[in-house]
Amino acid sequence: MSPVTVAPEVTPALLIDSSPLLKAIVQQIRANDAYGTYRNWADELLLKPYIVSKTDKKDIPLEEEIDPLTKSRILSYYRAIAYCIEQETGSLAQVVVDLNHEGFGWALVFAGRLLLVSKTLRDAQRFGFKSLDKMKAEGEKLIQKGIELAEKYPEVREL
Amino acid sequence: MSPVTVAPEVTPALLIDSSPLLKAIVQQIRANDAYGTYRNWADELLLKPYIVSKTDKKDIPLEEEIDPLTKSRILSYYRAIAYCIEQETGSLAQVVVDLNHEGFGWALVFAGRLLLVSKTLRDAQRFGFKSLDKMKAEGEKLIQKGIELAEKYPEVREL
Repeated sequence: MSPVTVAPEVTPALLIDSSPLLKAIVQQIRANDAYGTYRNWADELLLKPYIVSKTDKKDIPLEEEIDPLTKSRILSYYRAIAYCIEQETGSLAQVVVDLNHEGFGWALVFAGRLLLVSKTLRDAQRFGFKSLDKMKAEGEKLIQKGIELAEKYPEVREL
Repeated sequence: MSPVTVAPEVTPALLIDSSPLLKAIVQQIRANDAYGTYRNWADELLLKPYIVSKTDKKDIPLEEEIDPLTKSRILSYYRAIAYCIEQETGSLAQVVVDLNHEGFGWALVFAGRLLLVSKTLRDAQRFGFKSLDKMKAEGEKLIQKGIELAEKYPEVREL
């Protein structure tokens, strides 16, 4: 019998260390931590509130105003995406997250006159991902698309 | 002596009637008038709060949260601009006004991936113009620029 090869388990910590996006989100959270509340927290603990299961989501009421912490999580997520696109393209990117009282709105990342990310948000009160892997994959898709647009329309992003 | 020709006075009502932008702003205000409060108001009365003199501005404190009425005036203004650009280009335009607690933020009008209007707002609590003429002139400049961009980058605005 040939020996069974067991793939080394990818721990959250390893996943974060290998992902520029996840690291950038952690960096955003730490940058906003004016009182040092999270100073001694592990990165994976900081990202934990981004993981929201289907049942968790159902428990978050949509009738209420969006929680300021959720809003700030959304901002950190899109700022991290903007940062990752900047690293590739060299163009400064701005982030605007606009949500109404019903948790509906836009997340925009733009450079010059070019929208690198343009995403409608719905039920933002329930913002979150099934897993860290999912969060990484979805974010990377947005980054990839943003970089492609920036490369395709350099003139517009320099306006 | 040759007779003196007196130019007919341009009343606010005449100015509004001759300006697609001012008419569009009035339309926005009436569209948001769910309770019919303004039903019998003249157009020029509806636009009056947009006219804020230098001394008026000084009286509006910047330490306080932006007045919801001011916020809605800013939205109506940029929605009217978006509407006027749409009329020329045929592309649907979205409007996002994002303001933080200090009255600082962005007013954005976009179609597809193209930002037709991209304006930073400061001291938004004091949003207003010296006169109807000024409001018309400034708005028309934004519209003109937006139309130019839309015509120059049709591919980006159709994305």
